[in-house]
Amino acid sequence: MDLAHHLTENKKIKPNYSAAGYVKVLAPATVANLVCGFDVLGMCLNEPNDLMEVKLLNEKKVIILSADGYPLPLDPAQNTAGAPLIEMINELDTPTGFEVTIHKRIKPGSGIGSSAASAAGAVVAANHLLGNVFSNKDLVRFAMFGEKVASGVKHADNVAPCIYGGITLIRSIHPLDIISISSPDLFVTIVHPQIEVRTKDARQILRKEVLLKDAIRQWGNIAGLVAGFMQSDLDLIGRSLEDVIIEPVRSILIPGFDEVKIKCKEAGALGGGISGSGPSLFMLSRDEATAKNVQTAMQDIYKQIGLEFNTYVTTINQKGVKIIEG
Amino acid sequence: MDLAHHLTENKKIKPNYSAAGYVKVLAPATVANLVCGFDVLGMCLNEPNDLMEVKLLNEKKVIILSADGYPLPLDPAQNTAGAPLIEMINELDTPTGFEVTIHKRIKPGSGIGSSAASAAGAVVAANHLLGNVFSNKDLVRFAMFGEKVASGVKHADNVAPCIYGGITLIRSIHPLDIISISSPDLFVTIVHPQIEVRTKDARQILRKEVLLKDAIRQWGNIAGLVAGFMQSDLDLIGRSLEDVIIEPVRSILIPGFDEVKIKCKEAGALGGGISGSGPSLFMLSRDEATAKNVQTAMQDIYKQIGLEFNTYVTTINQKGVKIIEG
Repeated sequence: MDLAHHLTENKKIKPNYSAAGYVKVLAPATVANLVCGFDVLGMCLNEPNDLMEVKLLNEKKVIILSADGYPLPLDPAQNTAGAPLIEMINELDTPTGFEVTIHKRIKPGSGIGSSAASAAGAVVAANHLLGNVFSNKDLVRFAMFGEKVASGVKHADNVAPCIYGGITLIRSIHPLDIISISSPDLFVTIVHPQIEVRTKDARQILRKEVLLKDAIRQWGNIAGLVAGFMQSDLDLIGRSLEDVIIEPVRSILIPGFDEVKIKCKEAGALGGGISGSGPSLFMLSRDEATAKNVQTAMQDIYKQIGLEFNTYVTTINQKGVKIIEG
Repeated sequence: MDLAHHLTENKKIKPNYSAAGYVKVLAPATVANLVCGFDVLGMCLNEPNDLMEVKLLNEKKVIILSADGYPLPLDPAQNTAGAPLIEMINELDTPTGFEVTIHKRIKPGSGIGSSAASAAGAVVAANHLLGNVFSNKDLVRFAMFGEKVASGVKHADNVAPCIYGGITLIRSIHPLDIISISSPDLFVTIVHPQIEVRTKDARQILRKEVLLKDAIRQWGNIAGLVAGFMQSDLDLIGRSLEDVIIEPVRSILIPGFDEVKIKCKEAGALGGGISGSGPSLFMLSRDEATAKNVQTAMQDIYKQIGLEFNTYVTTINQKGVKIIEG
């Protein structure tokens, strides 16, 4: 059991309120399951973001509002921003609550951490109003309750990069062990083909057993990927972006997958794969011009297939959730 | 195919002989299969070493001599130092050969890279006499022929750290992809219980399939271990030194294994496990005093069991094979 958690079991936390009582944050999209880093590596993006406004209340209560009429669950216990805040206020020694207004811009079900953005944005904003009395690791612990509401599973590979920024390794969930991995300022191109891939389906089609020789290849690749990020060795990053276990199974759920991979590499991408459990795909590039060529390649493929899609060209967000007012 | 190999297929290499025509090297022991880094991570040690003397010959010929009467195969094609040199001289454009005298000090079959030391020492020494015309990667490629003679398998997880020094990741064998992983100056304690574990047996008892959830835990650990080494985060190294796949199977071949692990951690070791395919075990420690306490713990256990054993307290060798004369 980690110390922070242990302490909060014995002792409630005393807030150190900021004057404003109001904060506005940008909560960014994230890419989980970084190719060979299935279930353990995540990356924070500079675009797109949810915009969230959080007000301090002087009673133990969480109120969720949808700014733009987007049909979010308004029962806080069923909302990905609300559930983490309920956990948080239960650890405070004062009757404190929050009113959260969500401007939902990251489309739910896109595979780029829409639920994680709401959860992470809410807890970072709330912690700011409390005078930052909780650690980032505490915030991840709270935010995971939002992921449980969204998908039934308390996973951290989107909320951790969303809160810490950059690339994070979730070495372990029990106990929670989060490691920030430094990385060069790479460009990221995302394509979101407008089809539904349910996380539950994406998980069910995975085999429970894998070949040892494939597992060895995968852990050679993740070791290479971590070393490549930390050494800013772009060629090594490219060589290591290979997934011999999950991608061959899951990619069949995503029309155009193989062609996207081939054409994006031809356009100069270092490599990439499925974002989260899809349907979005991501590609890393060394510069903006390449990332835009990669975007064009993606657009051409989905126009050809005849599927609606969105694309983004962005960069790795090294800071995570950003306070823009308050 | 890597470029160096490609070039040598088309063009023979012209040596740039050094004046002396004689060189003496120390070829160090190595630890392969660094716990969660099975088949991909290796580490070079400062002790023990083979002492090797290599003389330049002006004919295409390899001669192997055992300095101290140790019963080594003297047919160069069947010798772990000879086979790599045969490959090397075939890539030279001149009639060149080597006479190698081996002072065998790393006991064969101990699991700390005895065959790799002979192979790596021979090719580094020979390359020195040729004016360093081959890259380290070429030398690994040659040295792997020595491993094939020794175990039937061309693996690189001992010869690569022996040649490069430090900790190396073998991300891939085909094509050969070797990455140096920086690390803090840790202390290493080795115990070699005097039993025979045949590499072939150690390999045969492994299951061909593993649980996906175990593989995920393992790649979280290897990612944590690489990050821990590169960030000099000793606690992270300790937490990541966990093998949920190979060790539970192989450790049954090594009497006292579980007790060594428990007692060495109680003595302050960060963690450790089986060296190569055993029977030697290794433990990493943050300082020499701890490494010596770990040694005492190991000695107590094998005295109790009644097995003959050797122990070493050493450090990570950041340089690899060392030229001491010539």
